[in-house]
Parts: sequence; structure tokens; C-alpha cells
Amino acid sequence: MEEPPAFLADPETTRESIMRATYLALCEYGYTGLTVQRIGEEFKKSKSLLYHHYDDKDELLLAFLQFMLEEYKSTVSTPESDGPAERLNAVLDTMLAPSLSEHYQEFTAAMVELRAQAAHDERYREQFAEHDRLFHDQLSSIIQTGIESDIFRAVDPDRAATLLLTTVVGTMTRRVTGDDDAAAVRAETEAYIDGILRSEE
Amino acid sequence: MEEPPAFLADPETTRESIMRATYLALCEYGYTGLTVQRIGEEFKKSKSLLYHHYDDKDELLLAFLQFMLEEYKSTVSTPESDGPAERLNAVLDTMLAPSLSEHYQEFTAAMVELRAQAAHDERYREQFAEHDRLFHDQLSSIIQTGIESDIFRAVDPDRAATLLLTTVVGTMTRRVTGDDDAAAVRAETEAYIDGILRSEE
Repeated sequence: MEEPPAFLADPETTRESIMRATYLALCEYGYTGLTVQRIGEEFKKSKSLLYHHYDDKDELLLAFLQFMLEEYKSTVSTPESDGPAERLNAVLDTMLAPSLSEHYQEFTAAMVELRAQAAHDERYREQFAEHDRLFHDQLSSIIQTGIESDIFRAVDPDRAATLLLTTVVGTMTRRVTGDDDAAAVRAETEAYIDGILRSEE
Repeated sequence: MEEPPAFLADPETTRESIMRATYLALCEYGYTGLTVQRIGEEFKKSKSLLYHHYDDKDELLLAFLQFMLEEYKSTVSTPESDGPAERLNAVLDTMLAPSLSEHYQEFTAAMVELRAQAAHDERYREQFAEHDRLFHDQLSSIIQTGIESDIFRAVDPDRAATLLLTTVVGTMTRRVTGDDDAAAVRAETEAYIDGILRSEE
């Protein structure tokens, strides 16, 4: 397995160490196979510290999702020097990459399992709805900037962002629960952007 | 809760009775809360018959997915008298309906939970990949017919069908695990169909 993302590679606080252990155990065992015990095996400090902070695996995973959301918020700013079309491309190239490394494939599988908990657990639903809104607002803001600078037509940025967000969620889900044809999705999304969003030159 | 779909309302064979019981229990309890015992409570015939056929809930649910696939195959033919644009609209109006009845909301939640099992269970993945391929081929065939009759442009029907399928999977997932904004997805999908698929009149 590859190294975890940079923000988890070098944990500075106990909370970050716990989040790193949760991340690694989640990639290795998925939601179903995960136990607090197994998270403890990835945790270099005292295991009693872990048990002291979190009662069960769902409490730990909900804290993990909250942590990931904060990390995402702090890294979400793409360089303003790039134009809106380039920024939109960069986001979609990442989210709709034609294939994933083994590591991110495992992480995606775990996130799809976590997300399905939201079907019967309101606490998970709140977390994923907040993740979605953040990503939606990032896309919508890029499109709005593009409209203001005449790169994009006067589309409804909220609606366009909703379609792109839904496409990303569908791609993540299908990658690990069906066929992975993200390359076709990416190509047709490009056709949508060129034909619907882009201003006529 | 509303009545189950017609094909399950009046079971004629033992297999259909078991599938009906599975369907009802799945809607009521979701994947996580489901047990063979609870399926048995919805089953009017001898419970030992149920235990005789299926060892555990996953075996029963995999048989249920296979059954649903066969049912879908037998009902998938939309009237050929409708044109391809109308047929595509009809499929998307159903799959991207602005809201779901309580009954279908519960069924969708259960299916999203079932689908997430595919992240770690190859048997579920095969089932959902087959479901997706069937739906993809239905969409692709409608688009191909539209191209042949000059209703649609000479797009790549496989790619367009893949994007629409992914949008539907993303919408189903987000409906029950995040915000439900299917109406915005439907409207923007219409913009995609009008601007990318539709021939200029």
C-alpha cells in the first residue's frame, strides 16, 4: 500500500495520530471488517488513550469524517492564478481519474461503505451531506467565476454543480461496486462542459 | 407503506413468495437490520421451507437481486411506438423523479446498502455490474435508435449511456445518504440531452 496523504503522514497531535490509524485500518479492512481493536493496532501510542476517547467504531469513524472535512476545507483552495476552465478540469481530472492506485481504490471502497451507513444512520447522513455541500459549493463557485469572466455561458451554476457532484458520487460508487468506466464518464463530462458550459468563442 | 410492485403483489410460486417476503423485509429493516428470521415473518408459508432453501441472509439477498434482474429484463421493453427522445425521457423521468414515495425511498435506501456490500463481496459486485450493464444497454440502444433516425447527433452512444447511468447511480445514492436534489439533476440532464444529444432541428 502507498503512503497515506501528506496530511496524515506526519501526525503532530494525538488526534492526528488517531485519525491516521483510523485511515490506515479503514483502507486495510473496510467498514465491515473494521474494529476499534484493529484501529488500535495501527496506533503507536497507548491503546487505552484510544478507548478513552471513543466508545465504539462508529463514534471514531464519525470523528474521522469530520476530521477529513476540516482537512479538505483547509486544502480546497486551488490557485486563483488558474482560470475557471482550468480549475474545473483539474478538479474533475482528480475525481474522475481513469483509474485509481490500489491505495485510493481501497480508500474509495471504504468511503462507499461508510456512505451507505447514512441510509439508516442520521449522523452519517449529516456528515456526507456536509461533504457534498462543500464540494458542490467549490464547483459552483468556479462556474460562477467563469460566467462572470465570459468563459462560461449564463448557465445556472447551482444546477451545473449539482450534476457534476452527482456524477462524481456515481463514479466513486460504481468504481468499487460495479464496472469502472470512469474514462468514459470523464470524456462525456468534457463534452457536456464544452457544449453546455463553455461560451462560443 | 404502499403496495409492492405488481410483479410481487400476487406471488404464484414458492420462489416468488420468498422474494416478496425478502422485498418487504428489506424495505422495512434495510440491509443492516435484516435477518432471515425477519424475512420469515413476512413469509406466509412454512418458515422451514425458507431455511431449507437459503443458508443465510446474503445467500437470500443475492437470489433476490438475481430475481429482480430477471423481472427487470422481462419488463424493460418500452413501447416501440414511442420515439427515442420520448423513451429516453420516460426512463429518466422514472429514475430521476423529483421525489420518491415513502415506499420507494425505503427500497432505494436498502438497495444503496446492498450495493455497498459489493465493495468487499465479489458476489454482490457481479450482481450490480450486471444490473448496470442491462440499464446501460437499454439507454445505449435508445440513443443508437435516435442517431439512426436523425433525432440525435452522431454521438458515442456507449459514452452517453455511461454518463446517464452514472448520474442515475449517483442520484440514487445521494437521495438516501445526503441531500435529495434530483430535480436539479433532472433539469441539468435535460440541458445535456437538448444541447449534446439532440440534432439541430
